[in-house]
Amino acid sequence: MSVIAVLVDNLFEDVEYIKPASAFKNKGHELIHIGINKGSVVKGKKDTAVIIDPDIEKSHVDDFDALLIPGGYSPDILRINENVVKFTREFVESGKPVFAICHAPQILITAKVLKGRKITGWKSIKQDIINAGAQYLDQEVVEDGNIISSRYPGDIPEFIKATLEKLKNP
Amino acid sequence: MSVIAVLVDNLFEDVEYIKPASAFKNKGHELIHIGINKGSVVKGKKDTAVIIDPDIEKSHVDDFDALLIPGGYSPDILRINENVVKFTREFVESGKPVFAICHAPQILITAKVLKGRKITGWKSIKQDIINAGAQYLDQEVVEDGNIISSRYPGDIPEFIKATLEKLKNP
Repeated sequence: MSVIAVLVDNLFEDVEYIKPASAFKNKGHELIHIGINKGSVVKGKKDTAVIIDPDIEKSHVDDFDALLIPGGYSPDILRINENVVKFTREFVESGKPVFAICHAPQILITAKVLKGRKITGWKSIKQDIINAGAQYLDQEVVEDGNIISSRYPGDIPEFIKATLEKLKNP
Repeated sequence: MSVIAVLVDNLFEDVEYIKPASAFKNKGHELIHIGINKGSVVKGKKDTAVIIDPDIEKSHVDDFDALLIPGGYSPDILRINENVVKFTREFVESGKPVFAICHAPQILITAKVLKGRKITGWKSIKQDIINAGAQYLDQEVVEDGNIISSRYPGDIPEFIKATLEKLKNP
């Protein structure tokens, strides 16, 4: 079973956290919620509450098997934190699975890890993804090496299918 | 006196609309609120309500003297609308003043008008601005040709000073 880091802050897209998190737990995977301040409560756009387990300063890629970044406006908040950006960059470079949906690629852009990668995301950030040197694909799920991405809540079933498969065969 | 188009949708940063709008009105300028749907009410993060005057499909650059784009998450919503992007591109290319604060440059990125320009904006979108080919300057106000930009609510006094001056001498 895998230990999955979940990067969240306020205004995350509730279902983009709840549904994958629930599917991962149902398969016996463990979730550790990482954010700016340990013990703080962050809330989704629709008020889903998530308690931050370790803060980002105490989090190391070695302690996890995979990374999930839900969308909404949480990535916009998280990407201004240098430790979040460093952690995400190290995660992508480690080769361990990184699951990004909706606005999540914003953090990957700030971490400068998208050059030459195939990825998808919410259409509002399409030009940002292209400008970061990535190839934007308008499809339900894009899998390129260790990065699996989807566009929006409607893609969640396919996103879950692909990410669970990746956890089985990382 | 100038007729100023204000591009807004939900989740705009309230003070980034209220304070410049109030300053413009106090100087006798007219504001026309442009959005996706005429007559609809959009609300800021702190619930400030704004009624959309003409919708974007009926709006032409010729009808205005300047453009104000408040920040918050409104630009992320607006930039997925092709008419918004076209209107903004035409505005920048017209040479008429464009006032952008906080997340507003996101629309300029999608409109592909930032290459070679000097601009500032909220720090979360710094890398997006750089990747768009612009020079990001970390200062209260950046004026480059017809584009005047600021970073966040703390810059509003300087933003207002610079934009009012620009309206006097466009």
